[in-house]
Amino acid sequence: MNTYDIIMKKRDGYILDKDEIVYMVDGYTNGEIPDYQMSAFLMAVFFQGMNHEETTMLTMAMADSGDRLDLSKINGIKVDKHSTGGVGDKTSLIVGPILASLGVPVAKMSGRGLGHTGGTIDKLEGIPGFCTSISEEDFIKQVNETGLAIVGQTANLAPADKKIYALRDVTATVDNVSLIAASIMSKKLAAGADAIVLDVKVGSGAFMKTLEDARLLAKTMVAIGTLAGKDTTAVITDMNEPLGNMVGNILEVEEAVLCLQGKGEKRLMEVSKVLAAYMVLAAKKAECYDDAMRLVDDAIASGKAYDKLKEFVRAQHGDVVYLDDMEKFDKATYSKVIKGKDLFDANTSIFDMQATDCKKAYLIACNNQEIGMTSLVLGGGRETKDSVIDLTVGIKLLAHLGDLIKEEDEVAILYGNDEEKINAAYKRFVHAYTLSLENVFNNQIIYEVITKNEI
Amino acid sequence: MNTYDIIMKKRDGYILDKDEIVYMVDGYTNGEIPDYQMSAFLMAVFFQGMNHEETTMLTMAMADSGDRLDLSKINGIKVDKHSTGGVGDKTSLIVGPILASLGVPVAKMSGRGLGHTGGTIDKLEGIPGFCTSISEEDFIKQVNETGLAIVGQTANLAPADKKIYALRDVTATVDNVSLIAASIMSKKLAAGADAIVLDVKVGSGAFMKTLEDARLLAKTMVAIGTLAGKDTTAVITDMNEPLGNMVGNILEVEEAVLCLQGKGEKRLMEVSKVLAAYMVLAAKKAECYDDAMRLVDDAIASGKAYDKLKEFVRAQHGDVVYLDDMEKFDKATYSKVIKGKDLFDANTSIFDMQATDCKKAYLIACNNQEIGMTSLVLGGGRETKDSVIDLTVGIKLLAHLGDLIKEEDEVAILYGNDEEKINAAYKRFVHAYTLSLENVFNNQIIYEVITKNEI
Repeated sequence: MNTYDIIMKKRDGYILDKDEIVYMVDGYTNGEIPDYQMSAFLMAVFFQGMNHEETTMLTMAMADSGDRLDLSKINGIKVDKHSTGGVGDKTSLIVGPILASLGVPVAKMSGRGLGHTGGTIDKLEGIPGFCTSISEEDFIKQVNETGLAIVGQTANLAPADKKIYALRDVTATVDNVSLIAASIMSKKLAAGADAIVLDVKVGSGAFMKTLEDARLLAKTMVAIGTLAGKDTTAVITDMNEPLGNMVGNILEVEEAVLCLQGKGEKRLMEVSKVLAAYMVLAAKKAECYDDAMRLVDDAIASGKAYDKLKEFVRAQHGDVVYLDDMEKFDKATYSKVIKGKDLFDANTSIFDMQATDCKKAYLIACNNQEIGMTSLVLGGGRETKDSVIDLTVGIKLLAHLGDLIKEEDEVAILYGNDEEKINAAYKRFVHAYTLSLENVFNNQIIYEVITKNEI
Repeated sequence: MNTYDIIMKKRDGYILDKDEIVYMVDGYTNGEIPDYQMSAFLMAVFFQGMNHEETTMLTMAMADSGDRLDLSKINGIKVDKHSTGGVGDKTSLIVGPILASLGVPVAKMSGRGLGHTGGTIDKLEGIPGFCTSISEEDFIKQVNETGLAIVGQTANLAPADKKIYALRDVTATVDNVSLIAASIMSKKLAAGADAIVLDVKVGSGAFMKTLEDARLLAKTMVAIGTLAGKDTTAVITDMNEPLGNMVGNILEVEEAVLCLQGKGEKRLMEVSKVLAAYMVLAAKKAECYDDAMRLVDDAIASGKAYDKLKEFVRAQHGDVVYLDDMEKFDKATYSKVIKGKDLFDANTSIFDMQATDCKKAYLIACNNQEIGMTSLVLGGGRETKDSVIDLTVGIKLLAHLGDLIKEEDEVAILYGNDEEKINAAYKRFVHAYTLSLENVFNNQIIYEVITKNEI
């Protein structure tokens, strides 16, 4: 077996076998296969694709390239959740306590990563005292005792994925569904859960812009999970505007608390509850989806989920007084209210035909990527690995797509610690929305659910 | 402009502009673009192709990456010939003297390269005293005085091609027509001739196995040459068996002498004369092809071409006594005659149905690549850059495709200096032929001629 022949085989459209895929992944990870052969191989995969079996073998080889977490000492069916990423997505902070309160163990090891805001780990560090560095032993002990632990990644999970992703990032081989799916699922498989619920985002703030692409990715990942012997479900959810009202780190913790108190924004509540219900089903705590949803509703309404959040925060040395009295949280120094007039001034052309002094318009679309960039500009996310996150900054949305906005209506508030950054963020934000005199917005939030029966 | 965007543009099927192509070639040649990005780019080109304009810009950028020979001090129209390579191809040794004898200057700078036999330079070094190291000044002086000089490559021609070819060779991106054409033509353009005649080989001993592939390569190269302002013609010729009777270095010099004396093997004479005629036309020494061919025939019949060979050899300090008395050439120590029976024993299955003691069969095909390997095994070619060539070894073919062979008929003679190598060569040779009780061989030697009007 040699690298050249494997590149040529994929280039010519043949299906690779397990030995060949393992040869490529292992050889590249240990440095025997040079970058230039791997990048040619990845470009060949970009054009010729991989079937579900090949993609699964690639995923397994990447998962096997480093540590695999052993969660066998945790009692019960361990269910993991993964989101493909979007703006304002704080569902992990919400579904974790719900699941734990229903007796489903949640053992989450999270990387920090890059993005518009920090990751779950960064957000939790906004709670004074909260500790994300825990030994693997204590991590497992905590899950067995309180049902929930979320810690920073210490294990060397899927190093092959890390190395391959870095190469894809500079050789225009990122956007291939097999490679994307293998990258995500290799880390999930290495993380050791028994079942996986995937939140595949679609829309202007997601990696997948069309429902068709999102469906293909969802089906591919469900196929991989199923072939790897894990109960896997994917929910395709909307990311055409930020999820919920808050974008930021501490702001998102506050919003998660509101959700667990039953006072969350409608779309965010919906996504969190649907994901939680599918996790309850996967954990075999309910017979059917409706039963699972009833359990989830009850966990929130009864306050059990919120109590579990506090128990979990306390277990990781966080000060739960902040959760009950959120005014205590650190706040940004400056804030800037954005009104309807600010959006109208940035989108004057739509009013050309309107002979009235009293302007009003519907928010019918937004460039959600730009909303994310607004958060990044304010200092809430990481541009590079070494960026320092400002946990207090962010955006509070006071209007959503489909709303009718008048000049004096408050649309959003930007929070920042640097006036220049707020001004730069303001410019991005006001140009991110599309206005219309008629409401043509489609308000769907859950598009589809893909189970192993759909693939 | 950045490398990532250019890779993605080609990956997505867009046409690159001149600046982008120059950016890639120059950046890679000077080390600013790493191997892994270039290999991803080359794989994208493999799948998306390049149109004639892009391929020409790629060729020009590669030609401009090093020295360009300045032949302006040579009087007349300089015509270069290039063959895509085959087994037993010694036409350069034949057409050079023909052209020079007709007043067309031939200034050839040749690399040594890898192959079944050495290159033209290696073969000429089989003539005692022959010197292939000449300064550029003396090279030009010799062409002006005798009309012909063939020297080893001193200039740094198309270093970008050298570097890109080495990368293609290990990333399965060799067999793409644009990249092949650009590689060949970049060196030809850098070599400075006014007009180019290409001998595109097709068949089992050539890089292009089918007429369709050969035609595409021929058209692409003629398009490049034409767009680069050079009068370019391509002749597609047969390489399903070795060209002529001899494969080897000194053996091929001897055969070239026979051709110039009018006593050459039929197919070799035909290819040499056709190439020479198109070169005469390109040099504007004849009005039409028939006139050009009459000049070529006359150059051989009158002895002028052979005299020119001797004049050229003398100018480069070779001993012309060897040409007039070829028995004087160094010979290999051992020879092994291969008879019909040897081929029959290696191909017994075809005689199963024949109830006769007197076996006979037609040679209907040969794996010409294997004949080339026979020469390499004998020591006649270079496997690596550092291999030392044995100039005396080789193969003399006494039968050709289409011939009816009986058991006692002599088919070939292997010449070698090492009995083990002869035995290894023997095994390859006898298995290289396909025999048949019926003759189904198609004896075509010149398939097509592609001029700028055909593209």
